[in-house]
Amino acid sequence: MRIGIDLGGTKVAAGLVDDSHRIVRSFSRPSAGLGGEAITRLMGELCLELIASSGLTRSDIASIGAAGPGTVDGRTGRAVYFCNLPVSDYPMGPELSRITGIPNVRVENDANAAALGESRAGSTRDVDDSVLITIGTGIGGGVILGRKLFTGSYPGGTEFGHTVIVHNGRKCGCGRRGCWEAYASVPALIRTVRSYMRRDPASLLWEEAGGSLDGVDSFVPFRAARRGDKTAQKAIDDYLSCLADGLTDVVNVFRPQVLCLGGGLSGERSILAPLQKAIARDRYPGDGRETVLRFASLGNQAGIIGAACLGLEDPSPR
Amino acid sequence: MRIGIDLGGTKVAAGLVDDSHRIVRSFSRPSAGLGGEAITRLMGELCLELIASSGLTRSDIASIGAAGPGTVDGRTGRAVYFCNLPVSDYPMGPELSRITGIPNVRVENDANAAALGESRAGSTRDVDDSVLITIGTGIGGGVILGRKLFTGSYPGGTEFGHTVIVHNGRKCGCGRRGCWEAYASVPALIRTVRSYMRRDPASLLWEEAGGSLDGVDSFVPFRAARRGDKTAQKAIDDYLSCLADGLTDVVNVFRPQVLCLGGGLSGERSILAPLQKAIARDRYPGDGRETVLRFASLGNQAGIIGAACLGLEDPSPR
Repeated sequence: MRIGIDLGGTKVAAGLVDDSHRIVRSFSRPSAGLGGEAITRLMGELCLELIASSGLTRSDIASIGAAGPGTVDGRTGRAVYFCNLPVSDYPMGPELSRITGIPNVRVENDANAAALGESRAGSTRDVDDSVLITIGTGIGGGVILGRKLFTGSYPGGTEFGHTVIVHNGRKCGCGRRGCWEAYASVPALIRTVRSYMRRDPASLLWEEAGGSLDGVDSFVPFRAARRGDKTAQKAIDDYLSCLADGLTDVVNVFRPQVLCLGGGLSGERSILAPLQKAIARDRYPGDGRETVLRFASLGNQAGIIGAACLGLEDPSPR
Repeated sequence: MRIGIDLGGTKVAAGLVDDSHRIVRSFSRPSAGLGGEAITRLMGELCLELIASSGLTRSDIASIGAAGPGTVDGRTGRAVYFCNLPVSDYPMGPELSRITGIPNVRVENDANAAALGESRAGSTRDVDDSVLITIGTGIGGGVILGRKLFTGSYPGGTEFGHTVIVHNGRKCGCGRRGCWEAYASVPALIRTVRSYMRRDPASLLWEEAGGSLDGVDSFVPFRAARRGDKTAQKAIDDYLSCLADGLTDVVNVFRPQVLCLGGGLSGERSILAPLQKAIARDRYPGDGRETVLRFASLGNQAGIIGAACLGLEDPSPR
């Protein structure tokens, strides 16, 4: 049995995961505003509760893995910088190990852990090399090479969301201008849809959004487009051309066997064909073997399962 | 002894390289317009001449490496696509091996080979992980992970020059729009300088260029800027902001220990400080260990020495 912990900006969820990568039991608690020490203590409590409530002892737990949004030094378990929590330069892995008495503790960036989860238990199980791009509030990236996690030489690598697609463009949350994340995250999709709505009061987008710009979510444009609304389709095309730019960049750098999309748009199957078409048009000439675009399959369990998979890895990934 | 072959659009140069990575002897011939079969025959002749003229036999040659601009399948030695030569899908490695009677023949993309050369014999010898960016007619990239060449899963990887920095931007030679290469190659620098000259007839750029737009080369703006010309400095700043965008993207994805610049601007030491400053400002938060920016050190020998280093590698790089 392993434990996986999904550390989010609003809640922390810990799950007991069996050798078939199934979540046997899970607990979650609010996390908003907690700093490094407080959230690590909470994670420790959740682990001990999971163990006790399952009739297990700590010696039954092979490893604990925790994954959160930001920069983590996977080699030392140090949480360097978290996006949505006031965690900064905290020895999360060593402390969690001390609190729980379980020696094998790994901490990683959440997209890295999710990529590993898809590779071990999800939609990229059949290939050696894959890249996962998660599209949510931000854009995360995780790279699997030879079935192992690749994180870059120093913490803060595989941050595809923070590569530029618009020179001197929109300000991104990271401080840089023109990042892919600022044009292809879910908030960027919503922003694009709203700008098209303002220009077309007759668009079905208004009806699907309940008559208000505030009613726009990531499903609204796709529902309106399926009803034949041309403005909705234009907004989608506009957004997808930005999304495709970054995806094609990933292909031109890693040429993975599979490029996997996770996060908020994973249910929206209609985006796969236009994205694959754009990549095929724009990617640098290769030898005919093309990167396959797929959706992630672990859905909202990706956080816990991916984190639990961290314990299966060599503790010093590249 | 090993042989390295630098395959360019105008000439092919072959060199005999000793175990200290020194070029002992080299020959070159014109290559313009040659297809796969003809250029491979020429490469074979050069190898045999090198061997005979040095009083060696083929059993003295441990390996032959050849590197050219474009997409190569390093695992099979197949030249898939070359940018400046009509070479397409030709079994260059196996044929070169057959012609010369030397079994260990490797073919690679030129920037990949140059990155390996810098890692084995040049400016990145002291680190495990580095990325070389070559700035010339195009922008090439080579990645070294754990002192080994990383090429991506399929041929055509690490093509940083063909990642987008301007969504829907200038048409690039590869067919895509907005590629980094279209804004940060040497021709892009010249184009930028000319556009500033057109706006300022009093600029010293005109004098440094011999009074003509046609006289602009990559040295002109730096000479004019050193004489205090503000327009030249603006052109340089404009160009460097595009160059820095792509370099920062490399950092945010690979976080290498060293990011190495090769090619036409390698002599221009004044560009290092502003580029390093832009990267430090724009890169995603890390743990304080920063990627160091350096120039490549092999200069115009990088082609032959890098190609010769290919024979030192495992024949199946990732």
